[in-house]
Amino acid sequence: MTTHGPTSTMAREIAEQPVAIAATFDALRPLRVQMRDVAARAHRVLFVARGSSDNAAVYGRYLCEVHTGVPAALAAPSVATHYRSSLDLSDTVAVSISQSGRTEEIVETQAWAADCGARTIAITNDGASPLADAADLALVTRAGDERAVPATKSYTAQLAAVAVLVDALGVRPGRLDDQLAAVPEEVARLLGKAEGVDAAVEQLVDVEQILVSGRGIVYGTALEVALKLEETCLDPVRGLSYADLRHGPIAVVERGLVAVLATARDGPMVDGMTELAHDLARRGATIVGLGGDDGFAAACDTAVAGPRLPEAVAPLGLIVPAQLIVETLARRRGLDPDAPRGLSKVTQTDPG
Amino acid sequence: MTTHGPTSTMAREIAEQPVAIAATFDALRPLRVQMRDVAARAHRVLFVARGSSDNAAVYGRYLCEVHTGVPAALAAPSVATHYRSSLDLSDTVAVSISQSGRTEEIVETQAWAADCGARTIAITNDGASPLADAADLALVTRAGDERAVPATKSYTAQLAAVAVLVDALGVRPGRLDDQLAAVPEEVARLLGKAEGVDAAVEQLVDVEQILVSGRGIVYGTALEVALKLEETCLDPVRGLSYADLRHGPIAVVERGLVAVLATARDGPMVDGMTELAHDLARRGATIVGLGGDDGFAAACDTAVAGPRLPEAVAPLGLIVPAQLIVETLARRRGLDPDAPRGLSKVTQTDPG
Repeated sequence: MTTHGPTSTMAREIAEQPVAIAATFDALRPLRVQMRDVAARAHRVLFVARGSSDNAAVYGRYLCEVHTGVPAALAAPSVATHYRSSLDLSDTVAVSISQSGRTEEIVETQAWAADCGARTIAITNDGASPLADAADLALVTRAGDERAVPATKSYTAQLAAVAVLVDALGVRPGRLDDQLAAVPEEVARLLGKAEGVDAAVEQLVDVEQILVSGRGIVYGTALEVALKLEETCLDPVRGLSYADLRHGPIAVVERGLVAVLATARDGPMVDGMTELAHDLARRGATIVGLGGDDGFAAACDTAVAGPRLPEAVAPLGLIVPAQLIVETLARRRGLDPDAPRGLSKVTQTDPG
Repeated sequence: MTTHGPTSTMAREIAEQPVAIAATFDALRPLRVQMRDVAARAHRVLFVARGSSDNAAVYGRYLCEVHTGVPAALAAPSVATHYRSSLDLSDTVAVSISQSGRTEEIVETQAWAADCGARTIAITNDGASPLADAADLALVTRAGDERAVPATKSYTAQLAAVAVLVDALGVRPGRLDDQLAAVPEEVARLLGKAEGVDAAVEQLVDVEQILVSGRGIVYGTALEVALKLEETCLDPVRGLSYADLRHGPIAVVERGLVAVLATARDGPMVDGMTELAHDLARRGATIVGLGGDDGFAAACDTAVAGPRLPEAVAPLGLIVPAQLIVETLARRRGLDPDAPRGLSKVTQTDPG
């Protein structure tokens, strides 16, 4: 295990997010006409991704259905890579997301989608990657080089690209513009205040069982918090939707478990997430709340301040305090947040 | 905690599966023409389900894309119930799955899908339920009354209904007939032999960390094994796809963990699952293998015999030895498999 000072590469990359997000907006907004052209015949969006990128895709899927009225789904890559099925995707735009643009499974699934008749859009941080090269349209995020293994700024830049794209595909493109414009400053504010972050780290530092939950637009955020906690702090962490949690796993919640619950401050999920906080607390769990309104914060043992952003774009800010928690927690546990064991930056699903 | 003899209601219901599956085939095969009529304009299948039924839907989703070439997806019910989005689903058949046919979220999402222009097919064990009543076509499974909380015979009857339906929607309906016809006898054989079941129970009885994985057609089976283990034996159990496991969580695998890996005996996933067994073993995990071929069994510490069925219908048999393991394990741990705490038979996602 390496020794290291208080500032990791991961911490530096977390701090670069306001710039990365703003640069991504600036780069991609002018491509709206091309996005609409590529998707002109498409009545469906099919997201293709793995890992953190898949969590960005979960956000995209909900945003699509909730804010643009376009049915969306997540691809099952093995249908392409292992079963080599032939589907009619002529009414579909396939949106592939990969930071490196070099994850073979994703490159292969994008090629399969094109063979099936889909138009293809790649969201990647590398405009010279095979994924960008093969797509009908490449949306290149402006996160810059990311060297820490845990994705942070490349993830929020992906969310930014997803939001611009989904908005562009709607009947009223530009509807999310004002909300998105507020994101970089709000992320900078969250980084400066880090309200509740240290208290959350204290709650989590000695705990073995952690569960993360969210719902709807914020569900992808919950999955990303779980993945980051797990891959960086090396304990198994479960990310569950509100509904899946209620349908079984809630029965095994007991004293000693910490539940991290994520929600926006508005929208139709706050009340349910607040009720879930009370329910889990009654079962003996300790609750770390991420975001939400005053009522939600009051229902949690530790409240971590979230962004002052409406639900549709809240995921772009809500992940930020969680990244700070993960980075600090890893160091508190004597781990190197930049290089969790066993993981590499370009992930391959199937060993070569 | 109740005391109870060696034979639970759950054990009895597990044993009733050959009859339940055969009766479901007999009842539903004659409805193929109606299935094709309802889905005549549909180029898409959208599954709507939660819990065990959702695991049956995951099977349906893969079977659809792999064996009939029809794109399929799982609905996000909150898009209907909380965001009340309006999507154009006029090219879609919505297949809702619920044992009771009374889970409000599912009933509501089916109604929403119909409002969005979808045709609707309900798979339920109760032909008099609101879900069956409102659907364009009800496929009533013949599992009979199920009294134990953990779904067993109602789950395999759902798989049977899903297989008949998906097969009926393909370009060559009846293609799976011979494979399906072999299922009831094969399930009876597995129940009689229970090869490896006791050894697997010994591996699992004192273990705190259990992980279950599968891929493609068998992925839903892995999720169902995880859910059953968790809700019946009251320890947190993670169900992960092969790919999601490789993209992060594999880094936290260490000595003391037991990995239950499920695979068919043929198809494109056996080799990858065998490699995964070797990889996890190298990391110190103990491997319980469910199904697979001789090479896969040899890579596992404990091999539980699976069905002699081709991959497309293997999930209908593969879950059976896992059910036997779960039922025995619950009793070994002094729990009542029929009534795990905190769960009720008709699940509601949102408290009333």
